[in-house]
Amino acid sequence: MIIVMKKDVTQKEIDYVVKRIEKLGLKAMISKGVERTIIGVIGPEDRISMQPLEAFPGVEKVMPILAPYKLVSKEFKPEKTVIDLGKGVKIGAQEIIIMAGPCAIESYDQLFKTAKAVKEAGAQVLRGGAYKPRTSPYSFQGLGEEGLKILKEVAEQLNMPTVTEVMDTRDVEKVLKYTDILQIGARNMQNFSLLKEVGQTQKPVLLKRGMSATIKEWLMAAEYIAVGGNMNIILCERGIRTFEDFTRNTLDLSAVAAVRLLSHLPVIVDPSHGTGKYDLVPDMSLAAVACGADGLIIEVHPAPHEALSDGPQSLVPEKFKELTKKIKRVAEAVGRKF
Amino acid sequence: MIIVMKKDVTQKEIDYVVKRIEKLGLKAMISKGVERTIIGVIGPEDRISMQPLEAFPGVEKVMPILAPYKLVSKEFKPEKTVIDLGKGVKIGAQEIIIMAGPCAIESYDQLFKTAKAVKEAGAQVLRGGAYKPRTSPYSFQGLGEEGLKILKEVAEQLNMPTVTEVMDTRDVEKVLKYTDILQIGARNMQNFSLLKEVGQTQKPVLLKRGMSATIKEWLMAAEYIAVGGNMNIILCERGIRTFEDFTRNTLDLSAVAAVRLLSHLPVIVDPSHGTGKYDLVPDMSLAAVACGADGLIIEVHPAPHEALSDGPQSLVPEKFKELTKKIKRVAEAVGRKF
Amino acid sequence: MIIVMKKDVTQKEIDYVVKRIEKLGLKAMISKGVERTIIGVIGPEDRISMQPLEAFPGVEKVMPILAPYKLVSKEFKPEKTVIDLGKGVKIGAQEIIIMAGPCAIESYDQLFKTAKAVKEAGAQVLRGGAYKPRTSPYSFQGLGEEGLKILKEVAEQLNMPTVTEVMDTRDVEKVLKYTDILQIGARNMQNFSLLKEVGQTQKPVLLKRGMSATIKEWLMAAEYIAVGGNMNIILCERGIRTFEDFTRNTLDLSAVAAVRLLSHLPVIVDPSHGTGKYDLVPDMSLAAVACGADGLIIEVHPAPHEALSDGPQSLVPEKFKELTKKIKRVAEAVGRKF
Amino acid sequence: MIIVMKKDVTQKEIDYVVKRIEKLGLKAMISKGVERTIIGVIGPEDRISMQPLEAFPGVEKVMPILAPYKLVSKEFKPEKTVIDLGKGVKIGAQEIIIMAGPCAIESYDQLFKTAKAVKEAGAQVLRGGAYKPRTSPYSFQGLGEEGLKILKEVAEQLNMPTVTEVMDTRDVEKVLKYTDILQIGARNMQNFSLLKEVGQTQKPVLLKRGMSATIKEWLMAAEYIAVGGNMNIILCERGIRTFEDFTRNTLDLSAVAAVRLLSHLPVIVDPSHGTGKYDLVPDMSLAAVACGADGLIIEVHPAPHEALSDGPQSLVPEKFKELTKKIKRVAEAVGRKF
Repeated sequence: MIIVMKKDVTQKEIDYVVKRIEKLGLKAMISKGVERTIIGVIGPEDRISMQPLEAFPGVEKVMPILAPYKLVSKEFKPEKTVIDLGKGVKIGAQEIIIMAGPCAIESYDQLFKTAKAVKEAGAQVLRGGAYKPRTSPYSFQGLGEEGLKILKEVAEQLNMPTVTEVMDTRDVEKVLKYTDILQIGARNMQNFSLLKEVGQTQKPVLLKRGMSATIKEWLMAAEYIAVGGNMNIILCERGIRTFEDFTRNTLDLSAVAAVRLLSHLPVIVDPSHGTGKYDLVPDMSLAAVACGADGLIIEVHPAPHEALSDGPQSLVPEKFKELTKKIKRVAEAVGRKF
Repeated sequence: MIIVMKKDVTQKEIDYVVKRIEKLGLKAMISKGVERTIIGVIGPEDRISMQPLEAFPGVEKVMPILAPYKLVSKEFKPEKTVIDLGKGVKIGAQEIIIMAGPCAIESYDQLFKTAKAVKEAGAQVLRGGAYKPRTSPYSFQGLGEEGLKILKEVAEQLNMPTVTEVMDTRDVEKVLKYTDILQIGARNMQNFSLLKEVGQTQKPVLLKRGMSATIKEWLMAAEYIAVGGNMNIILCERGIRTFEDFTRNTLDLSAVAAVRLLSHLPVIVDPSHGTGKYDLVPDMSLAAVACGADGLIIEVHPAPHEALSDGPQSLVPEKFKELTKKIKRVAEAVGRKF
Repeated sequence: MIIVMKKDVTQKEIDYVVKRIEKLGLKAMISKGVERTIIGVIGPEDRISMQPLEAFPGVEKVMPILAPYKLVSKEFKPEKTVIDLGKGVKIGAQEIIIMAGPCAIESYDQLFKTAKAVKEAGAQVLRGGAYKPRTSPYSFQGLGEEGLKILKEVAEQLNMPTVTEVMDTRDVEKVLKYTDILQIGARNMQNFSLLKEVGQTQKPVLLKRGMSATIKEWLMAAEYIAVGGNMNIILCERGIRTFEDFTRNTLDLSAVAAVRLLSHLPVIVDPSHGTGKYDLVPDMSLAAVACGADGLIIEVHPAPHEALSDGPQSLVPEKFKELTKKIKRVAEAVGRKF
Repeated sequence: MIIVMKKDVTQKEIDYVVKRIEKLGLKAMISKGVERTIIGVIGPEDRISMQPLEAFPGVEKVMPILAPYKLVSKEFKPEKTVIDLGKGVKIGAQEIIIMAGPCAIESYDQLFKTAKAVKEAGAQVLRGGAYKPRTSPYSFQGLGEEGLKILKEVAEQLNMPTVTEVMDTRDVEKVLKYTDILQIGARNMQNFSLLKEVGQTQKPVLLKRGMSATIKEWLMAAEYIAVGGNMNIILCERGIRTFEDFTRNTLDLSAVAAVRLLSHLPVIVDPSHGTGKYDLVPDMSLAAVACGADGLIIEVHPAPHEALSDGPQSLVPEKFKELTKKIKRVAEAVGRKF
C-alpha cells in the first residue's frame, strides 16, 4: 500500500498516518519528495485495506499494490483448477465443454427434444432455466420447481450433467437437489447473501460476470464463494454493458484472456447473452474458443419463434450442430479437444 | 408495436407474423414501402410484447411504441405521489427531505452522536446500514440485527423515521420491524425475488438505481414492487458506472429530471455514493435540489477516518450543517422548502 | 512514480530499472516487501513518464503520483483564471455567463431574431455554428464563411461577443477574424493539430469535453493549448457517452465540481447537447449553476421544428427567457450574480 | 420512418406533421391506436431524416426504419469488397492480411530491423507512425516527414506496402506520396474535414473505430469517405472505452461479426491498442481471426522497453513469429488462408 499525502500536508498529519499504520503491527516507510510525501506500508496489505485511509486528514490518494482477491488468484494456486461436473464431465482441462439448451424450461417435450439434439451435436452439459430473472414483471418468470423436476428427469434419461440458475437464498437447498451446477446470474453477481449461501455447498457454481462488473469485482465475487469453502467455481463472461446498442451487450473476450492470467479458475463464455443476436453467436463462439475459453454456454431452442424467453438469441438445433463442427476445428487449432 | 420485416421477406413470413398477431386478438396493419414491409400491431401492446418476435423468420427488428412500465408511469397517474414516512415526515411534496447518517452503524454512541448532529442541521430521516453489501468478503459486513436494534433505539429517542438496507429475502420480515423505510441497494435493483418480497409489504421502499441500469430498467424494477401492491416507492439516483474514474460513479442528474417527466414517484439523490468523494458532495447536493430532486441521502460520520465503511465519502457534522444552510437557499430559489 | 515489480522479479531486472532511472538524473528508492519489491522514483516525474516502464522486464505496474497536466492545474496557479471575452464580458469571475443562440446559422434573419431575443433575456454571448460536425454526410453542413459573416454582422449590431466552432486547422486563421471565442467541438477534443493551432493564438478557446474523455484527458487537451502560449481556455462539459439512451449523452455535472478542484480554468456547461432534449434543458441549467459552473451555453431557436440542426434540443425564446429568470435566482442562492 | 405522437396530441398537430411530410413529396399514413397515434412515412427515408421531427409539436418520438448509411451497406453492394494494397497484396479475399511494425518510427535501423522480422514471420504490410496522436503534449510526437521518408525507403527495400497515420488535413497530400494506405486514427474518426479530404483520393484508407463510436457511427464515418468517391475503405476495430480498466480499451469483437453482416467493406482488428497489454495480444489476435476478421494490425518492436511510444503493448519479434504460426492454424480452421 502506498499512501500519497497532499502537497500541503503537515507533520502532524503524517505522524497520525504513521501511528495508525504502526498500531496495526505494520511498518511505515516515509519518503519525502520535491512535490509530495509518500508513505509506504510494509506488511500484509489486507490488515490496512479496511482502514478509511482516504478520509485521513492530509491524504491525497491511496494506491494498493496487491490484488484484493487471494484464494481465486493464480499467485495463491498456480495450477489450473479442474472441476468435476459429474457423469464423467470435467471442466478446466484440455477438453472444451459446451453447455447448451433452452433459456427457459417450458415443458418436458421442449426440453427433451432440445437436450437430445444438443447432446447429439456434442454438448456435454444441459442448461435450462426454471427461475428466470426478467426485466419485466409481466414476462414469463419460469416454471419454478416444476421446471427443476423436468430438468432432472431429462438429464437422467440422457445422462448429462445440468446447470440451472438459483436467484433466491431461500431456493438454494431446493435447487441443489435437482442440478449438478448452480448458476449465479449476472444480476446477482453481487448478491452477497446468495454468494455466501452457495459458498457453503460443494456444488460447482457457474458465476456469471455482472453487467457492469470489472474483472476485479468479478474475481472478488468468486472470492466470496471460495472463502466459504467452495472452490468449484466456473467463471462465465456474458457481455458487459456499454454504449453500443447494436448488440444486447458487449462481449468482452479480453476478459477471458485476462482471467487466465490472474486466476486458476476455469472460464467459459456465453455468446447468446453476450450478443443477443442468434446470427452473431457462431462467430463469437469460435472467437471464445480461440482465445482460450474452457467452454461455452449456448442457448438452443427447437422453435425460437415460440420460445417464452430469449428467442431472438437462440440457435435452432441444426445451426448448433453446424457450429459444433467448427468449434472442433478451432479447438484443435489452439491445442484443445472437443 | 411496429415490426420491420427484412428486405427479402417472403409473403409466407408476413402471413405467419399476421397470424400470430391475430391469434392474440390484436389487429395487424401491413404497410408495404419501397424498401421494407412494416407491420403495425393495433391493440394492447403488452399482449404481444412477450412474443419472441425478433426470432420470427423474416423479421428484421421490433420497435415498441409504449413504455413497458405502467403503474409507475405518469400516464397511469399524472399527479405526484406523496409518501408518508411516519413521524410527520412526507416525501414528494414541496419540502426537500434529507436522509443522513453513517454508512454503517458501528455502535450506539456513533449512531446517536451522528443522528443528533444531522437532526440539528435539519435532516428529517436517519440512515444507517446494518447489513452492508461490500465488494470484498474481508471487509466489515455490518452489525446485522444488533445494528437494527441500535437504529430503532436511536430513532425513537430522536423521533426520526429511519431507512436501512435489506439484502436478503430471508431478512425482510425482520428488518420490517425495525425501520420505517426499506432500502434496496444498487446491486440488488434487479434482485427480482427481493423486489417481489418488499412489494408484498406496505412499507416505503427506497429503490436505488442499479450501477448499469437504464432509466427504463429502473422504472421496471419499481414496477415489480408496484405490481405486488406497494406503491410507496422512492426512487434514488446514486450514480452510474462509466469510464470516468476520478469519481467513484457518474452521478446522472438528468435521470432525476427524466424520472420527473416519466413517473409520479418521488426521486432523491445520493451524492455520497454518486461521487465517492466528500469534497464533491456539497456541490452535487445543491445541483440535485436545483434540478428537482425531492430529497437527498447523505453519509455523515463524526470521524470519517475511523469509519468502518465509506469514510472517504462521508461528511463531518459541521460540513453537513454548512451544507444544509446552502440547500435551504437553493431549495427556496426553485420554489421548494427545507 | 512508483514501480511495482513482479512477484518473481530477478535482481538483474531490478538493477536494470534502477540504472535507467539513474541515467535520467533521478534517484531510485528500493523497498523490498514480503510480497513485492517496489521502486520509488525521486525527482521530477515528467522526466521518467515518457519511458515505457511497463514494458521493462520484471515490471508489474507503474503508478504515477502526480497529475500529468501542469500549466492548467490549480497547483501551478491557485487563483481562478478570469478571461476577457471582449465587449465588457468576462468569464471566471462572480457573474454567470450565458452563451446562447442557434445550433447552426441559417440566415441573417434567423440569427438576428434569435440574438435579439437571447440578449433581451440576459445572455451575454452569442453562439452560432458556421461549420457543423454532422454524423451524416447527408445532413446540413453549415453555411461556412457566409455564416461567419452573418455572425459578425449580427454581433456588431447587438454588441455581443461571439463563439463559433472551428473544425479544420486550415480554417483557424479565417475563423479568427470573425469571432471572439473559438470553439473546439467534442469530436475534436483530441485533434491535436487543431489544439496546437489555436494554442498559437491569444483568442479565448471554448474546449468541449470529448464524448469519452476522462477529466484527466480533457485537462491534457487544455494543456496542449496552454503549452502553445494561450491560457485563455474555457472548459465546457457537454455530456459523456454512457449506456443510458433516454438522453443523448449523460451530463456529468460532477466533472464541473471536479474541474474546480483541479484547475484554475473557468468551466461552463452545455445542457442542450448534454441532454439532447429541450424539456430537460432548464432543470439541468439550474443544476449546473448550483454546482459551480461559471456559465452555460444553450441552444435557442425561434422555430425548432424548422431548424436545420439540433431542433429537438433547442429552446424557443420564451422558454429561454423564463429559464434566465430562474437562473438568476439560483445564481444568487449560491453567491453568484446574473 | 415511424412518427409516434404524444398521448394528448391535437388534430392540428397531426395535420402539421402530415403537411410537412407531403411537402417533401412523401406519403403519410396515419394509424390511430388506443394509446397513440402513429404516422408512417412512405417514400425515401433520407428526404425526411433531415427534418427536426422530434421538435415538432405533438411528436413523442421518431423511429427510423432504415440504416442511415447507404454506399457502405451490404444492401447497396452485397458482394464483399476486395482492396488492392499494392505490391501484390489484397485485403477482403480469403487471405488473412497482417500489418505489423512499431507504433512510432524512431530511426531507419529500428524500422528496418522490425520490418525484416515481421516480413519473415509472414506479415504482408508494414505499419509505422510518423505523426503520433499523444494524450500528452510532453510525449514524443513522431518524426514527421523524416519518418515518412524512412518508411518509404524501408518498404521499398523489403517490397512491402505500408500504412501510416495522417492527422491533419494539411498533411494529406504529403503523406499520400509516401504510403500505400492512409490511416485515420480513432481520435479522428469524426474529424469530418479529414474524412472528406481522404475521400477525394483513391488511396486505401484504414478507418479506425472511434473510442466511443457506435457501429452505426463508424459506418457513417466510412460513408463520408465513400460519398467523396473513395470506396477503398478498410474498417479497423481497436477497442472501445468502457468502465473496465484492466485493459486499455475493451476490444469489441462482436463488432467485427456485426460489420460483416451490415457492410461489404473488409474489417481488421488491432489487438495492440484494443488491449494495451502485450500478453493479451496473441489470444485476441486468434479470436479476431476466428470470428471473421480479414486481417490484423499488430505493434511489434525489437526492444519494447526502449520504445518511444506504446512499448507496453508491443510484441518482440520472436513472440510475433510464434503468433503468426498459431494464426495460420486458426485461419485454416475457419476456412481462410495465411
